Amino acid sequence: MLIVKKFGGTSVGNKERIFNVARRCIEDYKKGHDIVVVLSAMGKMTDELIAEARAINPNPSKREMDMLYTIGEQKSVALMAMAMDALGAPAVSLNAFQVAMHSTNKYGNARLKRIDTERINHELDQRKIVLVTGFQGIDQYNNYTTLGRGGSDTTAVALAAALRADACEIYTDVEGVYTADPRKVPDARKLEEITYNEMLELATLGAGVLHNRCVELAKKNGVQIVVRSSLNEAPGTVVKSFTATRDQVVCGVAGDKDAARIAVMGVKNEPGTAFKLFNILARHNINVDIILQSIGHDGKKDISFTVREDLVEEAVECIRKNFNSKKYDSIDVEKKIAMVSVVGAGMLDHPGVARKMFAALAQANINIRMISTSEIRVTVLVAEDEMVEAMNAAHKAFALEQ
Amino acid sequence: MLIVKKFGGTSVGNKERIFNVARRCIEDYKKGHDIVVVLSAMGKMTDELIAEARAINPNPSKREMDMLYTIGEQKSVALMAMAMDALGAPAVSLNAFQVAMHSTNKYGNARLKRIDTERINHELDQRKIVLVTGFQGIDQYNNYTTLGRGGSDTTAVALAAALRADACEIYTDVEGVYTADPRKVPDARKLEEITYNEMLELATLGAGVLHNRCVELAKKNGVQIVVRSSLNEAPGTVVKSFTATRDQVVCGVAGDKDAARIAVMGVKNEPGTAFKLFNILARHNINVDIILQSIGHDGKKDISFTVREDLVEEAVECIRKNFNSKKYDSIDVEKKIAMVSVVGAGMLDHPGVARKMFAALAQANINIRMISTSEIRVTVLVAEDEMVEAMNAAHKAFALEQ
Repeated sequence: MLIVKKFGGTSVGNKERIFNVARRCIEDYKKGHDIVVVLSAMGKMTDELIAEARAINPNPSKREMDMLYTIGEQKSVALMAMAMDALGAPAVSLNAFQVAMHSTNKYGNARLKRIDTERINHELDQRKIVLVTGFQGIDQYNNYTTLGRGGSDTTAVALAAALRADACEIYTDVEGVYTADPRKVPDARKLEEITYNEMLELATLGAGVLHNRCVELAKKNGVQIVVRSSLNEAPGTVVKSFTATRDQVVCGVAGDKDAARIAVMGVKNEPGTAFKLFNILARHNINVDIILQSIGHDGKKDISFTVREDLVEEAVECIRKNFNSKKYDSIDVEKKIAMVSVVGAGMLDHPGVARKMFAALAQANINIRMISTSEIRVTVLVAEDEMVEAMNAAHKAFALEQ
Repeated sequence: MLIVKKFGGTSVGNKERIFNVARRCIEDYKKGHDIVVVLSAMGKMTDELIAEARAINPNPSKREMDMLYTIGEQKSVALMAMAMDALGAPAVSLNAFQVAMHSTNKYGNARLKRIDTERINHELDQRKIVLVTGFQGIDQYNNYTTLGRGGSDTTAVALAAALRADACEIYTDVEGVYTADPRKVPDARKLEEITYNEMLELATLGAGVLHNRCVELAKKNGVQIVVRSSLNEAPGTVVKSFTATRDQVVCGVAGDKDAARIAVMGVKNEPGTAFKLFNILARHNINVDIILQSIGHDGKKDISFTVREDLVEEAVECIRKNFNSKKYDSIDVEKKIAMVSVVGAGMLDHPGVARKMFAALAQANINIRMISTSEIRVTVLVAEDEMVEAMNAAHKAFALEQ
């Protein structure tokens, strides 16, 4: 079996952890498997590099930042090879250019285009454990690039796809994907399986263990991912196309306090005003989540939407400056709100999820401010101090603890 | 003009020094010159990496050490590019594979074979300052290699040769090459010029500012090197084939306390015994400097030689174990000795240098234990506590202060 394993920065943060990872990999290697390991930069190294760069240039070029970042993962793979060697297992470290991992040339946020498999396969044929730098690529001119957030996970999935690996294991500091954050919902339970689409919704809601881009790539290439703990042997959660074992409609509940509601009140009821408003925000790179428009009366309507909390001031300022003040009466802002979502691929075949959620919240006496739905998600806006209660109510309503 | 400049680890050891180097390079850039800058790893970074590696594996593989080492220079060039950018000068950093710098595959001690000039010339054409990682290369399979001691100087000279640069400037913490170490010989004077061969002898004696391999490469390719200070604007010393301005026979005096004398006494006067003795030492990688064999009597002779002080015990042990004890009477060791040398290409045309040196030492009442000469060097062995006096006497005898 060919297994791709990915370990994050905390998993290789010091000598003991490096040896812990080395031992886990060697265990599978000794069973006769071919092992490819993707590593991130150690612990706080990336943060330290950013600080050093900023001290020299507050606004460093993205190309040079990527040139600087890539030393982080190279250090991890070299030290890991030494650790495995010390434990008697032959290992070889490879960086993005040695593999090679070809990417687009968007520094700081590149996408992998193509992975050469010749070198890795050659090393595997020599029965070596192959250690690959995560997060990085090279563009067509051999410049280093980095893949942006969740980059090392994406590297692992892309490698698994290119090598036609039998398994892709992503090791984290949690045991897998839960029905909800266990710190907020004590009844939360680890899922055995989850679909790509569910995982994508959770990732978008900030509740997923994996980044969007990594899950999208896995979905596109049919790479089955196992999310599991680097600290114990628990089996983890399998991310795949279809879940066979689960008979629940909903797979999880997510809560996100990092939201604020902006309402533009008394907007003139003319065609195109909503477009103009959101076009202004988009042009200023302000991402809008939920949008709600009230039915107009007196030739006027209210347009409400949510943004990330740190963007509130910028968004309001942006509207005041660029949206004709004659077209609306006032702007109202509420920061103490939160989004609560239920996600589940089963919604496609089982209507009534939204109704069930609303009922649960009503029973818990929680007021719903706004509602937004996708094919496999229902999101409601509630008061920030009611978020945890709402999550628990939804979790219970869908019997996720079972 | 195309100028290759090389700065060592202390020159880029912190933010202020990085900006100091950046400003010096930009000065020449603004005069319209094409600038290629070779950098070493920052200050103590290489030592820190070695310590981290040893903590994980006391005997790390050389391939993985090189993989680890190379991040040092990559960090230097990336940060330098950011500093130049902050000062308004366009710069681009390139590592060994981006250049590419092709080398042999002897990890830790590789030799550069071929340097591609396309990428560097392309960047120069865009009027960019090109920052290149020193000390590193890639082998034919794209593995990283490092060039061993003096590696970054060698990178600079090799680049200057490949790019047909008009100048190759090596910046150090001294102002150039001196007639002697000014801490030992107060009259020491900076040389305007020195020949490759003289520089090679000084390098071998541990007194040169440049490493052997770098000078050899410069000699082979006819690259004229300027050794100068990174701290001030003094003109430095030019290293070249022939020196025009100097009318002195001798260019410098060197002293080296790191020597010990081993004498194998009463060796049987048979053919091949000297060969056997030194063959044994060579097989155990013990480098021998000066060799002296006394004229035999009673069918016996004494063979004396010098080695580096830290190799004495190993050398003696090696002889006791491997050299037939019936072939000699005893082994005698003296550690408190030093080598004093005078170097000068002028010796080729001017006999009497050795005689003049011996006279000077005799006058200073310094006893000479052993003598060794090359075409352009005379070395004598003296007591360790007389080394500085011997250096000053020789320096004066050849009027090097003038």
